[in-house]
Amino acid sequence: MAPLKALVFDVFGTVVDWREGVARDLAAFFARHGAASIDAHAAADAWRRRYQPAMEECRSGRRPFTRLDVLHRENLDAVLAEHGVDLRSVDAAELDELNRAWHRLDPWPDSVPGLLRMKARYIVAPLSNGNVALLLNMAKRAGLPWDAILGAEVAGAYKPQPEAYLRTADILGLRPEQVCLVAAHNNDLAAARACGLATAFVLRATEHGPAQATDLAPSDRWDFIAPDFGDLATQLGC
Amino acid sequence: MAPLKALVFDVFGTVVDWREGVARDLAAFFARHGAASIDAHAAADAWRRRYQPAMEECRSGRRPFTRLDVLHRENLDAVLAEHGVDLRSVDAAELDELNRAWHRLDPWPDSVPGLLRMKARYIVAPLSNGNVALLLNMAKRAGLPWDAILGAEVAGAYKPQPEAYLRTADILGLRPEQVCLVAAHNNDLAAARACGLATAFVLRATEHGPAQATDLAPSDRWDFIAPDFGDLATQLGC
Repeated sequence: MAPLKALVFDVFGTVVDWREGVARDLAAFFARHGAASIDAHAAADAWRRRYQPAMEECRSGRRPFTRLDVLHRENLDAVLAEHGVDLRSVDAAELDELNRAWHRLDPWPDSVPGLLRMKARYIVAPLSNGNVALLLNMAKRAGLPWDAILGAEVAGAYKPQPEAYLRTADILGLRPEQVCLVAAHNNDLAAARACGLATAFVLRATEHGPAQATDLAPSDRWDFIAPDFGDLATQLGC
Repeated sequence: MAPLKALVFDVFGTVVDWREGVARDLAAFFARHGAASIDAHAAADAWRRRYQPAMEECRSGRRPFTRLDVLHRENLDAVLAEHGVDLRSVDAAELDELNRAWHRLDPWPDSVPGLLRMKARYIVAPLSNGNVALLLNMAKRAGLPWDAILGAEVAGAYKPQPEAYLRTADILGLRPEQVCLVAAHNNDLAAARACGLATAFVLRATEHGPAQATDLAPSDRWDFIAPDFGDLATQLGC
């Protein structure tokens, strides 16, 4: 393998626990609006189910590239309506604030210590479908020590489109094989490998809650396979 | 004034001393190639003089947006030829490495301590005409604690085009008045103010060497005027 220079990270699920964070803010919102009986985790899952179809509109070219905060906001309206919330009774500013639940996600316990170790030896940056403001606000709140904020918005393309990986390497001034994608999702790693990037699988067995059935094991012989960021840092010589 | 959320920084001259850093690497190159009699500071100035005209090709639309590493490399060839260096005698890889002198610039002594104080209260990011890899490699080497790497490449426009400032605020998810440009150059601050950004002038009296004649004083009543980053941090309540 060529010497690695940069580690780029999937974020939702790999670095942070989106499901618990989103459910927490949804639960508070439902309580404020007399709707505490709605299952906030189910609503978080419903919000997330609209994520791929919304990005697919952009990937397919049916819609110009649109940042994730905008897609999340549209999907929030749809999910709330689907759960019987009367949107006319809620201020737009409150919905915007709820939409920023995705900016307030907590890292898995090993994420920050592992990133600090990896940052000492490599460039570390997100390669996420989240937009810059989302990832930056998340990092400031959670102490994620990124060297730069990269990803779909900077590349102008949503993963798993090849441009998302290839333009990120190009922006870093690196060849694809000098860049390793770290992700908890086999499909993301497969797309990165097809572009020539190195690959690291980290197990996140509860991203989708206690009954998770996907991504419980590597589907291929990725370059690195680790149970957490601390172990990955050790494997990378950090 | 609206509460500031983000401080964005001009970099060449404001955060780092480009002239001494570039002259240092040019002097070592000239020594290796039997051309030690060439004045490295004069050559650095000549390289820098080609900076605005090269960007102007992109600003005018005569050339698509092209990242600064590429413009610097073209300008390097021209400057070396102008100084009598036979380019056919030099490996392209060595010229690429010399071109990355701009990635290896040292900060002014107050830059890192000042940025660390400002980072505790505000988002801090470059808003430079330098490209992402240049700014990121510089930050890793020099310990510049940016929260994100923004600027011309991410905005797709070179300062002082309005798009460089306005798209940067938009990417941050902020209104222009929530963002303050910090710069040692009055023309950069004037362009930022015209876009609605707050403005902070920091004096860098030797950016152009001991005989500097420009930007020795603020040309307007900028929102903040400071002798260095430490004083600016204090004025900003950090």
